[in-house]
Amino acid sequence: MKINFSTAAQHLGSSAVREILKVTQGKNIISLAGGLPGEELFPMQAVRDAYNKALAADTSALQYGLTEGYLPLREQIAARLTGQGIAVSASDMILTTGSQQALDLLCKIMLDPGDSVLVEAPTYLAALQVLGSYRADIHTVKSDEHGMLPDHLEEQLRIQRPKLLYAVPTFNNPSGATWSRERREQTVELCRRYNVLILEDNPYGEITFDDAQGAYPPTLAAIDRSGEGESCVVYTGTFSKIVAPGLRTGWIIGPPELIQVITKAKQAADLHSSAIDQRALSELLHNFDLEEHIRLISREYHSRMKLLSGELASRGWEGTHFLEPRGGMFLWLTLAEHINAAKLLPYAVRQGVAFVPGEVFYSEQPHRNTMRLNFTHTPPELMQIAVQRLDEALNIYGQSAEASQPIAQAD
Amino acid sequence: MKINFSTAAQHLGSSAVREILKVTQGKNIISLAGGLPGEELFPMQAVRDAYNKALAADTSALQYGLTEGYLPLREQIAARLTGQGIAVSASDMILTTGSQQALDLLCKIMLDPGDSVLVEAPTYLAALQVLGSYRADIHTVKSDEHGMLPDHLEEQLRIQRPKLLYAVPTFNNPSGATWSRERREQTVELCRRYNVLILEDNPYGEITFDDAQGAYPPTLAAIDRSGEGESCVVYTGTFSKIVAPGLRTGWIIGPPELIQVITKAKQAADLHSSAIDQRALSELLHNFDLEEHIRLISREYHSRMKLLSGELASRGWEGTHFLEPRGGMFLWLTLAEHINAAKLLPYAVRQGVAFVPGEVFYSEQPHRNTMRLNFTHTPPELMQIAVQRLDEALNIYGQSAEASQPIAQAD
Repeated sequence: MKINFSTAAQHLGSSAVREILKVTQGKNIISLAGGLPGEELFPMQAVRDAYNKALAADTSALQYGLTEGYLPLREQIAARLTGQGIAVSASDMILTTGSQQALDLLCKIMLDPGDSVLVEAPTYLAALQVLGSYRADIHTVKSDEHGMLPDHLEEQLRIQRPKLLYAVPTFNNPSGATWSRERREQTVELCRRYNVLILEDNPYGEITFDDAQGAYPPTLAAIDRSGEGESCVVYTGTFSKIVAPGLRTGWIIGPPELIQVITKAKQAADLHSSAIDQRALSELLHNFDLEEHIRLISREYHSRMKLLSGELASRGWEGTHFLEPRGGMFLWLTLAEHINAAKLLPYAVRQGVAFVPGEVFYSEQPHRNTMRLNFTHTPPELMQIAVQRLDEALNIYGQSAEASQPIAQAD
Repeated sequence: MKINFSTAAQHLGSSAVREILKVTQGKNIISLAGGLPGEELFPMQAVRDAYNKALAADTSALQYGLTEGYLPLREQIAARLTGQGIAVSASDMILTTGSQQALDLLCKIMLDPGDSVLVEAPTYLAALQVLGSYRADIHTVKSDEHGMLPDHLEEQLRIQRPKLLYAVPTFNNPSGATWSRERREQTVELCRRYNVLILEDNPYGEITFDDAQGAYPPTLAAIDRSGEGESCVVYTGTFSKIVAPGLRTGWIIGPPELIQVITKAKQAADLHSSAIDQRALSELLHNFDLEEHIRLISREYHSRMKLLSGELASRGWEGTHFLEPRGGMFLWLTLAEHINAAKLLPYAVRQGVAFVPGEVFYSEQPHRNTMRLNFTHTPPELMQIAVQRLDEALNIYGQSAEASQPIAQAD
């Protein structure tokens, strides 16, 4: 039969990243494309113990649970956040199926078709997809390596009258950039003045490469809650990067009236997320030194980033530049202006290496000579080979007919 | 700050059932209200073993997985469904966070505000909520104990031009009714003729009280796929009732082009459901005799239903009638016409028993003298006391001023 899909369905894009992942799976391709943590670093035994404990108790772990999520885990997350300068209680929070669901539910309860939303450029691809599925009118705020430019932010707040500002201010996906404290304060202050909600998406913030006290600025949520006036920052986090993605457990915190409406939306969406995974995480937080584990994976990811960065620097490709990220999972590479990374990709895959072309992370005016490189999933011993293959691809691409075509930087 | 919610948010209702559950939690109240399976029947040891096996293998169980869900589990579910007369393969299916998410995602990709949807009366409360959140125009098809009346169905198909028909044809929630084979065939035939998609929601179909071969009619999905012409039935099921709800694993099957669009919607909604729960279920299906377990819980639920039914019959409340369900989890009680079950509820809770007033299961013209009684969660030894308390509540209510007010059957 002919299926007559909804307008929303016609605005659902598929993720280029996931399509690339599908192509590279099971083949001898080194993928710097995905946003995957290194699975050899997963705390397997601690996770096994946690599930054993979660299932050892009574049968209630297997019964229907609260839509808001398992209360002891919410309390543990609230305590961790409070320790990070974000004073919250369990009732300010709902647990979600990864922070992706937090983003989706917030958009559902906030956005009507045509509502304006401000984002960074580049920004998280799946956020663009979710915003697109709700038919938001997406506008970019100009940024530099310190964050959104306050003058342009104010202009966009005034002209676009957005309902929401979405940002990943710490170890941005894809750019790796971290906003300065000053820009954070300015952003919170401006959004509060214009009565615009900020969604701060912080999946990577705990993966830090600098151990010094005060090395990093506070989160927008911490700035928001330490200041005067009503809160304007909704904050989402996840265990996907600091424990493991398979547990699919994230959280969102915000004003109680907003959390209540998200709870209703989640009740309709799936009643609640896996109660067993939530109990296992609660046991893990009780019995495992997660903070030490985060230091361990951060050190390892730092060393992989340095390896990648060193290999890239030693190649000295003409016109290429990048900044070393201070944490997180991604390095953002800008190639010479005439190189179209999307067209380079098939050459790279043929040489046995994959990346994500930067253009997919822009809602408008894409910079086509950029790419996102993930350094957390590839084992250190393969990093040199990966960059070697990228080098070969650049050479072959450079001799091709495609490379000589003019590149449209914005269409 | 003042939060300016979306139109969808303003159409999110909260579940009366869940609010009642909250009130009754932790108190000395026997609840016949929830739709909970009996937790003392959960196969705890098998579930523990399954998680152990799922986590014993490699680290990939903890990594990001496919949006469609764990392939071996999809293959196992496809094999079970094929054995039940619904010939499908893993690629016709996507795994969801319970069948609730299947319902939500299908509505998302099918319904624009104002689109018509046909339902039974009474029907599943959370379906009404999801349909409401997408601002569907909900219309009722008249039914008797054998299913939708074909003449009225055709009239509604012609007049309302619906996009979707939603039904729970087997051991309906809340009515307990099971459609006859003839009505099933007529419904599929009519919907196919009018090019209308059917969502068959079948969470209870395997909980059967009659062991005889051929005791039950085939599912709409089986009829649909055995006939000629293009498929018009989308089918959703879940492990929540036959294993345990906490694992939050359901599935939806349908035409490949529809499953592809649902997959995109799910990718935006939460990337994928818990990979660990899916692997554990796959191990459980390999190592545990689920069919024998289903026979065990079905026998036990049958015996509880008989207990409840016997107690109700022996009370002989004036004007009260009910049909014994042939499976599932619910018994639908119709009281004397002048009794308003919603007003009776506070009296019942004071006496220490809870139920769901029937009116919440109607999208229009509620029958206010009805209630839904769950018989799977209450231990057998409490069933007599539960009905005794309901009897007391009816007596006290009968002497109250409220009981003498005229009852509006439809407003």
